[in-house]
Amino acid sequence: MKLQKIILASTATVLMISAGLAIAQFQKPEDAIKYRQSVLTVMGNSFGKISAVVKGEAPYNKDEVAKNAAIVAMMSTLPWQAFGPGTEGGKAQPDIWSDNAKFKAASEKMQLAAVDLNKAAQSGDLESIKKAFAATGASCKNCHDDFKKK
Amino acid sequence: MKLQKIILASTATVLMISAGLAIAQFQKPEDAIKYRQSVLTVMGNSFGKISAVVKGEAPYNKDEVAKNAAIVAMMSTLPWQAFGPGTEGGKAQPDIWSDNAKFKAASEKMQLAAVDLNKAAQSGDLESIKKAFAATGASCKNCHDDFKKK
Repeated sequence: MKLQKIILASTATVLMISAGLAIAQFQKPEDAIKYRQSVLTVMGNSFGKISAVVKGEAPYNKDEVAKNAAIVAMMSTLPWQAFGPGTEGGKAQPDIWSDNAKFKAASEKMQLAAVDLNKAAQSGDLESIKKAFAATGASCKNCHDDFKKK
Repeated sequence: MKLQKIILASTATVLMISAGLAIAQFQKPEDAIKYRQSVLTVMGNSFGKISAVVKGEAPYNKDEVAKNAAIVAMMSTLPWQAFGPGTEGGKAQPDIWSDNAKFKAASEKMQLAAVDLNKAAQSGDLESIKKAFAATGASCKNCHDDFKKK
């Protein structure tokens, strides 16, 4: 077997295993779609509450913002497992699967921004929170522009 | 004004303020329903992963179970804000609003069970995890039996 064929066969095996895991975790593609949308709904709610504080529409309460930032950080790690092979659909653009490296890079940028936002929120420094909030919001928008259906 | 009337008026005011807050947080009742269902979907996914370990269907990995228990504990605190006045619907039984004290007691029992499960999961003692998992599952079932539509 030529090296190229071995690599192709190994890649196919890895993809099959990944697809198998995706199927094992979510019995149907709809379950994966429901899960990732649920995670993003929970994240969006907490992000929206921090947004109201940053925009001056709600008073700053350190504990509240810290809790919501912890939720955002935790949620930011979860939806990606539900974008496995065979889970196309919902509001997801096909580019998630056809240009997966770009999607993965965008998802990692968002997770790092959420970690920073959580650190700022736990510190209680509102100016740091505002900066980290803006960076996190930009990472959400960046990914939505490329990978979420309008 | 008689005392009884004052109490009734105060209660009405409190209920109106609560309703106002519920409306302020969720622009429409559908938003509250979507949020609470999303929280419970995220919680159910992580609880299901712990369930697979407890039932011996998946290998025990301390970090994985600890992360999922932390998600369950965090999620367990969130849906209740989305069961405010005027948010009837979805899979929620009307008894949530007509017998709210019972619903609140059931929700608090579940949150305490989830805290115990999280503690057990962080400790890494599988026998404690199994016990706390059973108690948490019972608290879920207890509340669903009374307050979730079949």
